[in-house]
Amino acid sequence: MDFIETETEKAYRLIAPRPTIIITTQYKGRINAAPFSFTMPVSVEPPLVAFASAPTHHTFKNIEKTGEFVINIPNEDILKELWITGEKLPEEVNELEKANLTGISSSIVSPPKIGECIAHMECKVHSITDVGDHKLVIGRVVKADVDKTALKDGLLDVENVKPVLHLGGVNFVVGDHLRQV
Amino acid sequence: MDFIETETEKAYRLIAPRPTIIITTQYKGRINAAPFSFTMPVSVEPPLVAFASAPTHHTFKNIEKTGEFVINIPNEDILKELWITGEKLPEEVNELEKANLTGISSSIVSPPKIGECIAHMECKVHSITDVGDHKLVIGRVVKADVDKTALKDGLLDVENVKPVLHLGGVNFVVGDHLRQV
Repeated sequence: MDFIETETEKAYRLIAPRPTIIITTQYKGRINAAPFSFTMPVSVEPPLVAFASAPTHHTFKNIEKTGEFVINIPNEDILKELWITGEKLPEEVNELEKANLTGISSSIVSPPKIGECIAHMECKVHSITDVGDHKLVIGRVVKADVDKTALKDGLLDVENVKPVLHLGGVNFVVGDHLRQV
Repeated sequence: MDFIETETEKAYRLIAPRPTIIITTQYKGRINAAPFSFTMPVSVEPPLVAFASAPTHHTFKNIEKTGEFVINIPNEDILKELWITGEKLPEEVNELEKANLTGISSSIVSPPKIGECIAHMECKVHSITDVGDHKLVIGRVVKADVDKTALKDGLLDVENVKPVLHLGGVNFVVGDHLRQV
């Protein structure tokens, strides 16, 4: 191989493609939804999940005020809808309606789950930290559900589910090419 | 869809498949290497990258002592070697030798880069935090390089590079199925 130096500020593009989630929040009755791909699990027990958000993002501001959010797992079927939830829209716009996605009631937290997503994690804020130009939000999963056909031996049935991963800009990867060691 | 509740402790399996990195560390001349998939970028400028590790992991213990590590980006060509670096081996074993991978000198930090990986990020510790049953390590990228043929328009050329993503156990996804919105 022939290695060339790359700007450190662009190095994040090398940790890719990244699992993409849609986060739903609710503040004063207003619902917001937006996609994120700076996300990872951080702890198994207690179950803690992290994501990083721009500090000005409506999703982050709602979470800061309410302490609650839902992680929705999309798949290839709703990639166009996912993209619409990522548009820069005024704070009062409900991205679910805009994208023609269905909000269904959560069990424990206020923000709705997305009916067209294959799995959901209801979360309460564990911690919020300033990290560089982003806010690091860690949530505790208080309830989780998954579509009955989405799992196989306890793992995502990727050939059936077709999860989407973000590469950059309009470019995604469909994670359905399974391989065992 | 037909949603069924799932244990919150197993919910992390839904944020998948996850980009998989090999982290190299060095302490008192001893080199360690191990794969991780609880990882994500957290900040663009300054360039900060996070990963979560079990507190007892040799990689974490070395980082705690030295403040340095290298993130190596593997691809499908070295999936078997990646798996070998993940085996539970005594602290004094150099997983690179065990996996027949090549260590090459880094520019700024002490741990070596892996010659067979398509990109590398030399990192210095920004912060270490206890988060649930894991340690959250955030590193600042101080130098990055990438194989000349691995990028296309500034993004990973996934059809050529074939990045590997961890689904669970011996199950991985090859992230080469590109799709645009």
